[in-house]
Amino acid sequence: MVNFQMRTDLALEARESIGEADSELRGVRVEEYYHEEEDIRVTKVMIDTKNAAKAMGKPMGIYVTMEAPAMVEPDEDYHREISGRLAEEILELLPQADDEQSVLVVGLGNREVTADALGPQVVDNLFITRHIVREYGTAAYNCSKMNQISALEPGVMAKTGMETAEIVKGVVEQTSPDVLIVIDALAARSTKRLNRTIQITNTGIQPGSGVGNHRNALTQESLGVPVIAIGIPTVVDAATIVGDALEKLLEEEEELENVRYRERQQLHFAELNNMYMTGKDIDAVIKRVSFTVSEGINIAIGETFLEH
Amino acid sequence: MVNFQMRTDLALEARESIGEADSELRGVRVEEYYHEEEDIRVTKVMIDTKNAAKAMGKPMGIYVTMEAPAMVEPDEDYHREISGRLAEEILELLPQADDEQSVLVVGLGNREVTADALGPQVVDNLFITRHIVREYGTAAYNCSKMNQISALEPGVMAKTGMETAEIVKGVVEQTSPDVLIVIDALAARSTKRLNRTIQITNTGIQPGSGVGNHRNALTQESLGVPVIAIGIPTVVDAATIVGDALEKLLEEEEELENVRYRERQQLHFAELNNMYMTGKDIDAVIKRVSFTVSEGINIAIGETFLEH
Amino acid sequence: MVNFQMRTDLALEARESIGEADSELRGVRVEEYYHEEEDIRVTKVMIDTKNAAKAMGKPMGIYVTMEAPAMVEPDEDYHREISGRLAEEILELLPQADDEQSVLVVGLGNREVTADALGPQVVDNLFITRHIVREYGTAAYNCSKMNQISALEPGVMAKTGMETAEIVKGVVEQTSPDVLIVIDALAARSTKRLNRTIQITNTGIQPGSGVGNHRNALTQESLGVPVIAIGIPTVVDAATIVGDALEKLLEEEEELENVRYRERQQLHFAELNNMYMTGKDIDAVIKRVSFTVSEGINIAIGETFLEH
Amino acid sequence: MVNFQMRTDLALEARESIGEADSELRGVRVEEYYHEEEDIRVTKVMIDTKNAAKAMGKPMGIYVTMEAPAMVEPDEDYHREISGRLAEEILELLPQADDEQSVLVVGLGNREVTADALGPQVVDNLFITRHIVREYGTAAYNCSKMNQISALEPGVMAKTGMETAEIVKGVVEQTSPDVLIVIDALAARSTKRLNRTIQITNTGIQPGSGVGNHRNALTQESLGVPVIAIGIPTVVDAATIVGDALEKLLEEEEELENVRYRERQQLHFAELNNMYMTGKDIDAVIKRVSFTVSEGINIAIGETFLEH
Repeated sequence: MVNFQMRTDLALEARESIGEADSELRGVRVEEYYHEEEDIRVTKVMIDTKNAAKAMGKPMGIYVTMEAPAMVEPDEDYHREISGRLAEEILELLPQADDEQSVLVVGLGNREVTADALGPQVVDNLFITRHIVREYGTAAYNCSKMNQISALEPGVMAKTGMETAEIVKGVVEQTSPDVLIVIDALAARSTKRLNRTIQITNTGIQPGSGVGNHRNALTQESLGVPVIAIGIPTVVDAATIVGDALEKLLEEEEELENVRYRERQQLHFAELNNMYMTGKDIDAVIKRVSFTVSEGINIAIGETFLEH
Repeated sequence: MVNFQMRTDLALEARESIGEADSELRGVRVEEYYHEEEDIRVTKVMIDTKNAAKAMGKPMGIYVTMEAPAMVEPDEDYHREISGRLAEEILELLPQADDEQSVLVVGLGNREVTADALGPQVVDNLFITRHIVREYGTAAYNCSKMNQISALEPGVMAKTGMETAEIVKGVVEQTSPDVLIVIDALAARSTKRLNRTIQITNTGIQPGSGVGNHRNALTQESLGVPVIAIGIPTVVDAATIVGDALEKLLEEEEELENVRYRERQQLHFAELNNMYMTGKDIDAVIKRVSFTVSEGINIAIGETFLEH
Repeated sequence: MVNFQMRTDLALEARESIGEADSELRGVRVEEYYHEEEDIRVTKVMIDTKNAAKAMGKPMGIYVTMEAPAMVEPDEDYHREISGRLAEEILELLPQADDEQSVLVVGLGNREVTADALGPQVVDNLFITRHIVREYGTAAYNCSKMNQISALEPGVMAKTGMETAEIVKGVVEQTSPDVLIVIDALAARSTKRLNRTIQITNTGIQPGSGVGNHRNALTQESLGVPVIAIGIPTVVDAATIVGDALEKLLEEEEELENVRYRERQQLHFAELNNMYMTGKDIDAVIKRVSFTVSEGINIAIGETFLEH
Repeated sequence: MVNFQMRTDLALEARESIGEADSELRGVRVEEYYHEEEDIRVTKVMIDTKNAAKAMGKPMGIYVTMEAPAMVEPDEDYHREISGRLAEEILELLPQADDEQSVLVVGLGNREVTADALGPQVVDNLFITRHIVREYGTAAYNCSKMNQISALEPGVMAKTGMETAEIVKGVVEQTSPDVLIVIDALAARSTKRLNRTIQITNTGIQPGSGVGNHRNALTQESLGVPVIAIGIPTVVDAATIVGDALEKLLEEEEELENVRYRERQQLHFAELNNMYMTGKDIDAVIKRVSFTVSEGINIAIGETFLEH
């Protein structure tokens, strides 16, 4: 089989590409459930061992994928039902706490590039409370306990000259949040997952992933606090999709000498480096989807911790 | 030869895809020259007959292509030397006039989608004078004769519910410009032309071209005034590039039954409809290139007519 | 009494400034009601005669003012309860029709100037249907009758070189809507009305009103179709507020020779021309308020006509 | 004399309001010069002692004010002649260094509020080099020594929940620049200085200044590195201008009991808190002026250090 280089940020797709036997891969557990009313399919991939992590090409941890086809459709309430389910999954991954927490939400990506603007746009719609609680106390919101939300849009290296990880680390050290939630636009392998899939993971962000690859590690190891990453695939890597299309064709032609093909495609596809593919209505989609994610975070941080 | 559907807005590429004999295609004249100092290669394709228009898949008229590799590079003066050469080509295509003219510049495309924002961004940087001249006379600019520039950003159908041609036609009828200059982002067939090629034509805009396909005809026939179209390729159509990559591979495998391939690729590529491919630094590129084009228009309309 | 020049776009304020006896001004009827649950006070000023129009400095017609203090506050549903009441008032002013109508919404103002961006931002959030209904019929929305919404952001004269009225007139003639809804940011006389008052009128837009004064008449007389205008005061004219402050002080100093003061203030305030005053959080307020107004229009045009 | 509360960020205005004797105020030196060709008047106020700092209401240090009336006018080169003079003044205030320096430029303010967007827009046009030099060395720019520029847009507290000083301090500690340049929009006392005056100071930023008051101290004392602040007045505080207008009127009425007036105005002007006044073309002005400032920084950091 021709095996082009895998280029996906989704654990779900990484698992699929390993092949049939994956469900029995040692060290990988998979749970699936379906929310019928909201038409959301949830797949939870738990990578429990280093060997499994190596096989999957993803670090150990929990990867939740919510497939919500309705998310791309216009909706007057910005799919609040999806936000509700997203909030549940965020809460599952957040570290347990007996007391109020301070949550820093980091919106990665480039506001000026539509397909990469998810992070900044999510941050625009958050209900920011840290500065109010610190100045006036929780009484400002008529409650005795309350989590604090702060938010950062670090920008991209081409515009700052600094690595995102440098900026985030500095802000974390100064403001001491209890947990980070990092938002980013992702690359998928298949166009059919674009903008209708949410991945939530407790492994943080790994170097070299994301639409703009504008990232160093943002992990508990590097930052000293737990890092939840929320991502939505908004683009398909150009070289990947061409490779996939070729592969499909070639699979059916057994007489072809595949090795020769692989060599050639690397020649032919060099021009596709640093190119990505996205839909023509990406602006409207990003705008809508960012509201859905923001509201999920607002619900998770607002409601849950309050009840503790 | 496998002959996938042609998807390019560039006359230069249309000509290339016709094949070797094109230089002798009756009814098509080609002129080429090279500005050494600015490293700009200009190709002028003149389609003189209906038959030639049919063969080329482009209407009769003049198509000037400026290939300026420096255009994608940062430059403190936004490549004023390219703006100067662009101004010369615009002036060649503008109808001769003994007197001042009123020029309406129309910036097509969607400001919110980075790769489609060329038209709106060009319009942002024009030197708008019509309202001043009409209210205070040309004396406001210390001259006795002066062209007037007005500008329109009609938006895209998904946001207006109206066809671009309806909006432009209404504004033309109310404000009676002498000539239109229409700016749009184009689709190219090859990634190597992206953002470094300017096409200027006196045929206006044809339905179904451009990045967002957000256009009906904007031509002298439909609007009643001459229409100069200026376009820069900012995207490659996803299905096209996959087709091209396949074609290159398959050309070398004579044993393949090409017909079967063509059928199959149409199946496999259905998911690529409404997808486009663009570079990861498209925001910075569009910002820079739009200044170059604006300045070309400012020079052409400002300087030249003034000398009459 | 020192009587500085009146500078307000609100009929409510114009009425107040006429003085105590206004409720008995012949030709002016006033109705007031209060929606307790939503805390919205509605004042309807009906100017029935030419004489009354002259005394009020406003054309004959109906002016509805909704005072909704909650509107400036953040709200997760963008104050849908206010949108509902706004929809009712829009429907009252819309011409009765037995059949579907085509409504063109025009967002006046300058997107780049925060306090003047209400119109463009309202247009961003409308549910645009005209192009869908025209291409696929009302069946696309699973209904047999349906109004069509289209929208236009004409821009400001400094950027287009054209008067707004020229652009709107051209588009109206080409697309033949049954009715226009025009949105604009207004100037108020008092800071306490900023961003919490909506004025809806069936008189259209008069020259010289609005934040940017970027307007000629947009009226049934000039355009040939009924024009509903919706405005929200987002700024106070700088000269007005200084004049008002002075007046308050001077009222209490009977010994002052007021005529001398008036002369002087015109001298002193010349520097305030073309200045306006607005709040420091105007960006967040405009963003929220524009959602409230968009939703009001979506409800009015969507729900009501459907039931006919 | 009625003496309303001073509200200006300009040392020049603070000096004027102290009165006639200021030129002889001990501990304050003033230098003035005039660049005839560029029509730029430069006033350098040096506050040398603590007593003088107290009298002026500004910390000890050097305050350079460039009055450049041409700056508000459109210009095809964005007033490069002013950028050149600005670069000279920046270089005078920069700490001397024998070697390359790393400069972090911080753009304060709120991108969404036009009059407060100076800082973010200046940052947009900088020539960012730190990441390139760190990855590829100065050879990437064909030189053996080169300063590094990085840039940060920290956002405003209402959107981040964090104080600007927290964010800047964190980033400074992580990235260790040699010097900071901080850009902000200022409040002036007089409308005639708006957008045509640049203040450059080596005292950094003091709490409570700037358009949005979105700032804690950003000073050498708080951050550990020298801080150059560059500001341009884009607004006039509303309460200030009303107070000034009143004062002018009242000065001429000796019979008035000024104390009573002062009390009253505080009552009347309460509604003006958190309001500011700005010009109607502020968007175009900020766009142009930000290019002038960016280019001044690009020249200063690029040219000068290179020559060492």
